[in-house]
Amino acid sequence: MQSAVRFELTALTSQLAEMCGMAADAIDQATHALLLADREMAQAVIAGYENASAMRSTTEETTFHLLAAQPPLAADLRSMVNAIRITADAERMGALSVQVAEIACRHHPYHAVPAEVGGRVAELSALAVALARADQEALLSRERRLTALLRRDTGAVGELYRQLLSVLIDPRWRYGVAAGVDVALLSRLYERFADHAVQIAGRVDFEIDGDPSRANPAEITASRLDL
Amino acid sequence: MQSAVRFELTALTSQLAEMCGMAADAIDQATHALLLADREMAQAVIAGYENASAMRSTTEETTFHLLAAQPPLAADLRSMVNAIRITADAERMGALSVQVAEIACRHHPYHAVPAEVGGRVAELSALAVALARADQEALLSRERRLTALLRRDTGAVGELYRQLLSVLIDPRWRYGVAAGVDVALLSRLYERFADHAVQIAGRVDFEIDGDPSRANPAEITASRLDL
Repeated sequence: MQSAVRFELTALTSQLAEMCGMAADAIDQATHALLLADREMAQAVIAGYENASAMRSTTEETTFHLLAAQPPLAADLRSMVNAIRITADAERMGALSVQVAEIACRHHPYHAVPAEVGGRVAELSALAVALARADQEALLSRERRLTALLRRDTGAVGELYRQLLSVLIDPRWRYGVAAGVDVALLSRLYERFADHAVQIAGRVDFEIDGDPSRANPAEITASRLDL
Repeated sequence: MQSAVRFELTALTSQLAEMCGMAADAIDQATHALLLADREMAQAVIAGYENASAMRSTTEETTFHLLAAQPPLAADLRSMVNAIRITADAERMGALSVQVAEIACRHHPYHAVPAEVGGRVAELSALAVALARADQEALLSRERRLTALLRRDTGAVGELYRQLLSVLIDPRWRYGVAAGVDVALLSRLYERFADHAVQIAGRVDFEIDGDPSRANPAEITASRLDL
């Protein structure tokens, strides 16, 4: 009986890792669409969200089935509850990517982001992609080294986010309020994406050692504190 | 055995309802602090977040305990899985209130919001408060009437959010980019708060009738689509 559970839990973990991989691809493509004013790619990201939603339903069904099947062992129960939370985070990361793509679409054929800040947006996106990929690997390998790495990178995200906001509110900003508002909201989307990625890392740690305080790492609180 | 489960589930529902009530109070007070540049009230909201976190831990423990105790009935299992998700939504609503309070603090002794848009921010906040209170009631009463009401109100939130953004990007906006960026991010915080409140309503519906499609109402997707 328990080996069947173990088998299903392994399948569930693969599904969660795949969701993180899909989120990484989605934010990467959305950023390309944004910075190159590539409407087709933006539309592909928006259409691809359906796959992420379908994947979420699959993982939710698997989890529900596992929970219903038998009184689980404490460690397995932890994995199942965690899976519910990780699914929600990964799905949210996909939705945030869609929002980036939508901003690209709305501005087409123009660029939503002035060239002056394009480099910083690209950096922010690269970090977001790396975080989602690290989640994917951490889920599969259960290596604490990876989750530690994730926490370090989130500091870099916060730093870039603050830099971008300070560029916008600098009196030398010469692209007007509308562009400023869009870039501020875009930066916030990347920052949120990164925050969800870090939450997933915290949940993987929690599963590794069962210490619930790790499921809400201090870094999340820190990132929550700077809007 | 099952009556003990029922008793614990009722207690869990009360805890979830209380979390929604706390979120309603928090966003209400944060808005007061914001519009009146009242630093003490802002600090009270920030400090009060600890109670919300503690409440989240309590509901998580209760859920975990319920899941671990016995192979649950399908309907009860649905309630337990839902409780995990509602806890996360309600906790997020509290965190968003803290972010509003932090913006108020950062601008003190000045006002973060130009008087011209204060009225719209107050309206947005009133809707957010009403949504969280409706969640609280819907959880306790299991009345579908309330969740339907919630879905109607979320349209009003989206409308106000769009209005606010259009005021900011209007060439007649005369408060500069920094104020525009702050008001845009503030509006987004209220819109997110409302979205989580609607998600909770969807989950309550899901519990009432077990139809999973209701747990992700179309309205959420609609609100996701307009940034």
